Amino acid sequence: MSAALNILGQPVQPAANQIPAHIASLPDYEQQARHHIEASAWQHIQGGADQQLTLAHNRAAFDALRLVPRPLADLSGAHTRQMLLGQPLEHPILLAPVAYQTLAHPEGELASVRAATALQAGMLVSTLSSHTLEAIAQEAQHARHALQRRGPLWFQLYSQAERSHTLELVQRAESAGYEAIVWTVDASIKRSGFALPPGVAAANLRHVPSRQQAGSIDGPPLFGTPLAQQAPTWDELRWLRAHTRLPFILKGVLHPQQARQAVDCGVDALIVSNHGGRVLDGVVSPIEALPAIAAAVQVPLLLDSGVRWGTDVVKALALGASAVLVGRPQLHALACAGWLGVAHMLHLLRGELELAMAQLGCATLEEIGPDVLWRNT
Amino acid sequence: MSAALNILGQPVQPAANQIPAHIASLPDYEQQARHHIEASAWQHIQGGADQQLTLAHNRAAFDALRLVPRPLADLSGAHTRQMLLGQPLEHPILLAPVAYQTLAHPEGELASVRAATALQAGMLVSTLSSHTLEAIAQEAQHARHALQRRGPLWFQLYSQAERSHTLELVQRAESAGYEAIVWTVDASIKRSGFALPPGVAAANLRHVPSRQQAGSIDGPPLFGTPLAQQAPTWDELRWLRAHTRLPFILKGVLHPQQARQAVDCGVDALIVSNHGGRVLDGVVSPIEALPAIAAAVQVPLLLDSGVRWGTDVVKALALGASAVLVGRPQLHALACAGWLGVAHMLHLLRGELELAMAQLGCATLEEIGPDVLWRNT
Amino acid sequence: MSAALNILGQPVQPAANQIPAHIASLPDYEQQARHHIEASAWQHIQGGADQQLTLAHNRAAFDALRLVPRPLADLSGAHTRQMLLGQPLEHPILLAPVAYQTLAHPEGELASVRAATALQAGMLVSTLSSHTLEAIAQEAQHARHALQRRGPLWFQLYSQAERSHTLELVQRAESAGYEAIVWTVDASIKRSGFALPPGVAAANLRHVPSRQQAGSIDGPPLFGTPLAQQAPTWDELRWLRAHTRLPFILKGVLHPQQARQAVDCGVDALIVSNHGGRVLDGVVSPIEALPAIAAAVQVPLLLDSGVRWGTDVVKALALGASAVLVGRPQLHALACAGWLGVAHMLHLLRGELELAMAQLGCATLEEIGPDVLWRNT
Amino acid sequence: MSAALNILGQPVQPAANQIPAHIASLPDYEQQARHHIEASAWQHIQGGADQQLTLAHNRAAFDALRLVPRPLADLSGAHTRQMLLGQPLEHPILLAPVAYQTLAHPEGELASVRAATALQAGMLVSTLSSHTLEAIAQEAQHARHALQRRGPLWFQLYSQAERSHTLELVQRAESAGYEAIVWTVDASIKRSGFALPPGVAAANLRHVPSRQQAGSIDGPPLFGTPLAQQAPTWDELRWLRAHTRLPFILKGVLHPQQARQAVDCGVDALIVSNHGGRVLDGVVSPIEALPAIAAAVQVPLLLDSGVRWGTDVVKALALGASAVLVGRPQLHALACAGWLGVAHMLHLLRGELELAMAQLGCATLEEIGPDVLWRNT
Repeated sequence: MSAALNILGQPVQPAANQIPAHIASLPDYEQQARHHIEASAWQHIQGGADQQLTLAHNRAAFDALRLVPRPLADLSGAHTRQMLLGQPLEHPILLAPVAYQTLAHPEGELASVRAATALQAGMLVSTLSSHTLEAIAQEAQHARHALQRRGPLWFQLYSQAERSHTLELVQRAESAGYEAIVWTVDASIKRSGFALPPGVAAANLRHVPSRQQAGSIDGPPLFGTPLAQQAPTWDELRWLRAHTRLPFILKGVLHPQQARQAVDCGVDALIVSNHGGRVLDGVVSPIEALPAIAAAVQVPLLLDSGVRWGTDVVKALALGASAVLVGRPQLHALACAGWLGVAHMLHLLRGELELAMAQLGCATLEEIGPDVLWRNT
Repeated sequence: MSAALNILGQPVQPAANQIPAHIASLPDYEQQARHHIEASAWQHIQGGADQQLTLAHNRAAFDALRLVPRPLADLSGAHTRQMLLGQPLEHPILLAPVAYQTLAHPEGELASVRAATALQAGMLVSTLSSHTLEAIAQEAQHARHALQRRGPLWFQLYSQAERSHTLELVQRAESAGYEAIVWTVDASIKRSGFALPPGVAAANLRHVPSRQQAGSIDGPPLFGTPLAQQAPTWDELRWLRAHTRLPFILKGVLHPQQARQAVDCGVDALIVSNHGGRVLDGVVSPIEALPAIAAAVQVPLLLDSGVRWGTDVVKALALGASAVLVGRPQLHALACAGWLGVAHMLHLLRGELELAMAQLGCATLEEIGPDVLWRNT
Repeated sequence: MSAALNILGQPVQPAANQIPAHIASLPDYEQQARHHIEASAWQHIQGGADQQLTLAHNRAAFDALRLVPRPLADLSGAHTRQMLLGQPLEHPILLAPVAYQTLAHPEGELASVRAATALQAGMLVSTLSSHTLEAIAQEAQHARHALQRRGPLWFQLYSQAERSHTLELVQRAESAGYEAIVWTVDASIKRSGFALPPGVAAANLRHVPSRQQAGSIDGPPLFGTPLAQQAPTWDELRWLRAHTRLPFILKGVLHPQQARQAVDCGVDALIVSNHGGRVLDGVVSPIEALPAIAAAVQVPLLLDSGVRWGTDVVKALALGASAVLVGRPQLHALACAGWLGVAHMLHLLRGELELAMAQLGCATLEEIGPDVLWRNT
Repeated sequence: MSAALNILGQPVQPAANQIPAHIASLPDYEQQARHHIEASAWQHIQGGADQQLTLAHNRAAFDALRLVPRPLADLSGAHTRQMLLGQPLEHPILLAPVAYQTLAHPEGELASVRAATALQAGMLVSTLSSHTLEAIAQEAQHARHALQRRGPLWFQLYSQAERSHTLELVQRAESAGYEAIVWTVDASIKRSGFALPPGVAAANLRHVPSRQQAGSIDGPPLFGTPLAQQAPTWDELRWLRAHTRLPFILKGVLHPQQARQAVDCGVDALIVSNHGGRVLDGVVSPIEALPAIAAAVQVPLLLDSGVRWGTDVVKALALGASAVLVGRPQLHALACAGWLGVAHMLHLLRGELELAMAQLGCATLEEIGPDVLWRNT
């Protein structure tokens, strides 16, 4: 049997047992991870929709924002703590709900949740996790006891074709001890040519029928098919919100009017996200959409898509976010060095955030306001 | 006899009998088509005027527009139908009047019209078609009967040096069953160094004298020559409009004042186009010019030049177009896989359009308004 | 003795006796000319100051302006004629005063003036011509008689260290039949590392002492040296204007205030130029500076620096110029095909101008107004 | 023992004894210096923080400003002299406080101060100099006597963990004859992976404990550690200002509010700087921040970060600076040709400044106002 090849055409390297010495940033992990992931999985993980304009723009929109340092502040009592949805957060960096993490490392989400616990980071577990949500929650419990630390554990929900299957996922998450439900609504309809390799599957959905559909040139491409008819709706949101006692978060909002409408439906927080540029190309980036949403609603906002540097976290908070999620870097770090890699990745990002805060004269998250940003006017 | 070479220096590959597995978008067809078209024909097809600024800008202008998703809409009755010039359109994607289609595939326009019929797309047949307009109309009839489907069939007209020859083309189109006359006025004067290969000719114009002229360094380059003196004029427009009972469409308008003047002359619809960047370099792109034209006139507007993705269609409709035309992708698809390729290309584009509408919360074309676009203000 | 090498490291090719078949634009001449000019001369000709930002910007500023076609105009009586400083101009394209033209071709300015006469283009002869101004004027007379055509012949003046030497040049130009004096004031102080090859020299200045000076690290770099103390001044302008009966043109103006001041000193026309980006890097481009100058003064304006396409000529005229000058393309065409090349180059540019006018619906130069330009507002 | 390798993988070349003939600008020195510096030192010298956006932007911000020439001014008495902090300056170009100059050349700061004296340029000696501040001051005295010329000599101060150590540095600088204290506050907290090679050390700090700290993934990355608790504060500024009789300059200011606050604390001048893009990525560039700071305070402003051309000096002065500092080019010139290289580099930059002033019609520094800049409005 021939070994799996990475994108460089070489055999896939297993994860290292320690942090590679040259890694000093999240993009260093991305660069290194090319050696550790099979080629088609790599393309699936890294890719964006169509021309990948949104993928590139998610970065460019951060880079276009510039900061004005203000040294000489007193940093003796500086910290990055806050309360979010009634839960204490040690720092504003969470792990986004990335699907199928065993594509990157055999331990997958189990490693990620251990790292999140060690670094007191929140973790969002995907409906499409490659370990069951129960197994991941159990691993979180073990880690919390062993380390005497913890971060929030939330469940990310995709609607299923049958509402009963959707509700069952919510109830399983509640039973397993998840502390919030995050409903993703921006990716129910998209194109993908990626086939999961043997051994990787949606562990939570073994008995649930797939929504995949094949199309012929003759037939309707989307409208009129079950995929379109079963897409998430406002009606489903109201129904879901009524069926869980947990804090309920909507993920995939970019329009202020939708944000208001969601809050009116009882949503407790929003994740401003374009799904990492994976769904529709040419859409606005979350960091650009954020100010108008922050002006429109009072609930906590989290931001997703493109966060790679501590200065990105500062920029998101300056424009109204309470916290940020990191997606692909989880897989990069996982592939390079397993749970240790993810922990180190979180440590690097938090260190960069604090360094940026120090240069900007901000001793707490509350002091990160729009005045840290340079305006060209 | 040596085989014809493609732009890669390899023998030209014949069209495939099925869709190549890796093709999932119009640019995929473009990439693949390089293998299937002779080098000088490829350069002629792909090229733009001078520095090709307009060619590049036609794409950049679409890419500069960005969308704001609005998921959660009810898509259960979604569709893409509309009436256009009294004719039903299943979706807003038409085949532009591309000349000399046997450059790409031996069946040329016969294959294209079969594909258009199968996908219920409108087709515009060029004056410079490599099969006669009558043969193409006949093929359309056969396909309509066989498939029990149809799309609009329009004739694109270039003025000839003698008005009698121009009028003859109109009358032939009327007799053959074409449902509209599309008069192109932006390409009567241009430079081209391309010589048609043996076997490819303007089938409709076998008895009509060519307007080509050779210039010497001593003589006048353009002004004072027959080419300048016989260029289309407003006077010719009024004369033409009076000589056909069919809907009359003007192609090549970019200035709102000209749009108004054309409507005053009895034109029924306009195609906002810069001829795919082939004529004058450095001109405004149709997608940029569209809003002012939409504000200036009430007739239906179609848009041409640069459409490659479903999101481009959405953007054109958001800014006032009723439908779009695709040009070069016809030849790309034709070269790769004949009529099946063209049908698949149309299917892909329509699928992308519906996916974009779903993400934008638009269940019908009427719901695609300017508010789907992000504004940087 | 080894042959001179071109920038490609190959022996310099002599000029061809006919137009190379693939040349269809001025940039085609530039591309081809690399084969025909010795490497260090090529770098001198092509180069710009410092980072060459201005060199690039001169092109980018043209490319940033975009046009709105307006076909359907009546072109039956179209032409490009005008009167300029009392002299008839067949078209608005002149040859800029390029120095040392024997760097490109043994016939140098003699070939250029023949081509200018054949194409009825104005020619500006440089103080630093490699043939004497008298020899060039005599060649112009021969060509006018032989061809029964003519274009304006002007003399470009650089001030010399002694006013007597400067005045002598003016008087020689008057005696030789030049029809205007063009005083260049933007290049008296600049850096150059280029050494003229054997056989190339400033033919007009054989008895005039050079202003060149060598600097040491210890000494003053510029201020306090004769070069700074003898630079052209307003006082010298008034003196010069009083010492010639010919029309007097100032070349090198980019500031509207200077334009007004120059007109107050009796200057008859201005050439808006940044010396082809050769003197000071990072300066405004003429096409950008033009509108404010056109608003400030009433005298004819010519534009220099970056003109390569017919659409550039249209853009310059739309913003207030009466005519344009082409510089480096003269040398490119000269190197490729001698006087025939220069004539062809002028023919190409004029043809492109007329094609653009036709697409823009302009039958005369007067009809080229600011409304041919697209505005993003 | 194998020789040290440069970034090209070749043995490091020693400095030349004369100026290489092809060097005509500061970027020429940068290009050449790659041959003369060991690879890891080169990367340390050239590098910027994170993505190096600020490093690139420092140049782009200069390049985005454009100038409007105004020739014909009378330059007979032109000069570049001014008084700065009570000290005469022959020209507005100073050597920035670059650390560890023996990385580039064995003579390091001793060579730089000799060159500065020869060219009458100010020199700022770094706390992290590789020769002691006393040795550098002594070398300056020797050069002043030998050449009968001088430039200002200032000491750049980094705070130490103990205030007593900081104060000792100030007192040593005063005793050694330094004429101003420059306190740098924007780099007390930053990341660096560079290890000094054997033989290179902070000569002034041999008995002072280092602030370096190692971090573990488990521990706090910055906040709560001594590094954060001992960072410079406003309180320390007031203390320092009270403990020296020398002019006191603050380096690292980019925010107008901080500039005002610093002046209120008794600071005599400010250096607007982002530390050459080495500390925090994505921050505003000094040349952009300058106008608001110039509007906010009355004290002299110096500008640092990105100056490479004479036109950059003009732009800085036009926007409110009194003088500029050059950093990396010192090391480049030092590596290429020792003290002679640094002298030549200063001579080149001053020559470019004067050439630009001549083209802009400015005979003195006072005449360089905002009206030399082109505005796109």
